[in-house]
Amino acid sequence: MEYRKIKDEDEVRDGAHEDVEKSFLLSVPDSSLSSGGETRIDIHRTKAKWKRKSVVTLALTILTSSQAILIVWSKRAGKYEYSVTTANFMVETLKCAISLVALGRIWKKDGVNEDNRLTTTLDEVIVYPIPAVLYLVKNLLQYYIFAYVDAPGYQILKNLNIISTGVLYRIILKKRLSEIQWAAFVLLTAGCTTAQLNSNSDRVLQTPFQGWVMAIVMALLSGFAGVYTEAIIKKRPSRNINVQNFWLYIFGMCFNLVAMLVQDFDAVMNKGFFHGYSFITVLMIFNHALSGIAVSMVMKYADNIVKVYSTSVAMLLTAVVSVFLFGFQLSLAFFLGTVVVSVAIYLHSVGKMQR
Amino acid sequence: MEYRKIKDEDEVRDGAHEDVEKSFLLSVPDSSLSSGGETRIDIHRTKAKWKRKSVVTLALTILTSSQAILIVWSKRAGKYEYSVTTANFMVETLKCAISLVALGRIWKKDGVNEDNRLTTTLDEVIVYPIPAVLYLVKNLLQYYIFAYVDAPGYQILKNLNIISTGVLYRIILKKRLSEIQWAAFVLLTAGCTTAQLNSNSDRVLQTPFQGWVMAIVMALLSGFAGVYTEAIIKKRPSRNINVQNFWLYIFGMCFNLVAMLVQDFDAVMNKGFFHGYSFITVLMIFNHALSGIAVSMVMKYADNIVKVYSTSVAMLLTAVVSVFLFGFQLSLAFFLGTVVVSVAIYLHSVGKMQR
Repeated sequence: MEYRKIKDEDEVRDGAHEDVEKSFLLSVPDSSLSSGGETRIDIHRTKAKWKRKSVVTLALTILTSSQAILIVWSKRAGKYEYSVTTANFMVETLKCAISLVALGRIWKKDGVNEDNRLTTTLDEVIVYPIPAVLYLVKNLLQYYIFAYVDAPGYQILKNLNIISTGVLYRIILKKRLSEIQWAAFVLLTAGCTTAQLNSNSDRVLQTPFQGWVMAIVMALLSGFAGVYTEAIIKKRPSRNINVQNFWLYIFGMCFNLVAMLVQDFDAVMNKGFFHGYSFITVLMIFNHALSGIAVSMVMKYADNIVKVYSTSVAMLLTAVVSVFLFGFQLSLAFFLGTVVVSVAIYLHSVGKMQR
Repeated sequence: MEYRKIKDEDEVRDGAHEDVEKSFLLSVPDSSLSSGGETRIDIHRTKAKWKRKSVVTLALTILTSSQAILIVWSKRAGKYEYSVTTANFMVETLKCAISLVALGRIWKKDGVNEDNRLTTTLDEVIVYPIPAVLYLVKNLLQYYIFAYVDAPGYQILKNLNIISTGVLYRIILKKRLSEIQWAAFVLLTAGCTTAQLNSNSDRVLQTPFQGWVMAIVMALLSGFAGVYTEAIIKKRPSRNINVQNFWLYIFGMCFNLVAMLVQDFDAVMNKGFFHGYSFITVLMIFNHALSGIAVSMVMKYADNIVKVYSTSVAMLLTAVVSVFLFGFQLSLAFFLGTVVVSVAIYLHSVGKMQR
């Protein structure tokens, strides 16, 4: 009972209950393992949770890598004919719709209860717009950073996100990473950057001071948005993820609606909302929506660290798949980066056991 | 006493006695630490050994990095005017002379005994020419590999030495590396290669099959020579290192004399042995001789793994020093490689405690 209590406190405080449970099971003496049915149920539950965590992580990896491939594909097919803001709005709407459909099925099966009802309190809902605002500010900054860095340089600086996520994860969620896991995180950053090196990469070293500051601020905003989303979702562990998603995405819809009206009001009014949509546009919207949901699921059942590893692997996968789809050439730097990222993943899992 | 016995067996078998001693001291209960003077002496001895190990490693790092800088310097000063084989012969002779001088001082201080006398048995000395032969074969192969790879590509392929040394160290010396230390070794290889990347590096991926085979064979020869030297030196731990060096270098002198006569007999006869020697040539000969002795010391008091880390760090140091000396530009790849190598060094030391 004592363990259960500690576990629940942990769950509420930082959502790390899976790891606590795992390490508890690892350190439990043999005798108590065979003492009753409860421990066996615990093992079963841990396995189920581990499976769920793996499935959502795998889904995120596949969706993210196919997302990049769709972008390359759409670029090859020509420039965007549709207005990007309508597409973003559609993505948020689709996510809301998917969450509602999932909720409908759950209500039918389990009935409406405290955890899965859609109605909410101001106390619960007041924090939900914050990640959306953070992303908005970050996206606005994005227009200004290109005064200091070119696009490939920005891709390289974006790897600062990995470090900022780790640091904010530690500070805000107060979750500990072992020393080896920190080493792995540094390697992940270095490996991802190495994999993206090309003959023009050295230009990024000439980035002026303002460019560095903006890149760091953007990395912090992006990291903070991710970590804050995890905090919101994990704050109420028993709350159904589809309800939490619904509220996240409703605010996403609002902000994107405003962005659409500000930026593309005339275009939408004159040419129509769906002007220029093609099959690939629809595919991209579906992909973005599902990726978004996968991100939420990873935040709920795993954490930001897993998300960062997952999207890093997706980046490497995209490059490999692009060799077959678009005849891309892989560089030596890509191979070296992949080796370093692979070792980082290995060390992250080894480091977990040792903390 | 039991521990002492185990320790000595270990010392003879694989020379890993420092690590055994260290881990013993780490795992010893507090009560026994204060039980008597012997343990305190052990701690003192471990510290002294650790200090000696650090000093020889540091010496090797500094000598190796200044070696590369001297090469750049001599290249800037113009092409080699002297015959390389005479210089190599001089290096071996100088190493012999230094070993003899060191021995003379020891004889004066401690007298001649079993461990420091120069006379030897066929059984002891028969294995000493083997490393020299291996290096000779490797150097001969070096002329042929350039049919398949260019010089910068060869520099990159030479990093295979790191992996081959690790593998042969494991197989031949039967010393264990922990999983984290293996991961660190893979990172060291990837990091060193990354640090050397330039815009032409991708050409190495077009190396034909024969080129890869030769590069791997050369890496194995070089790794084997290093590991075999360690085996020879560690086989008789109580034997004075200067005696062991003397016999290693005598064979080195013989082989280099043959090489000189075969390649440069006419030049030496017509222009004289020291033709074309400059101040920098003499500096390079001294540097090579001292580096060679430092390598032997590292083999005696540390191991091939430490040697590989030391020379890798030297490679990075050379690049940094070259920025100040020759105005070299450091690339982003160099920074990333340095980060990966630094993490590898950290993980190697962390991994030691966990094996």
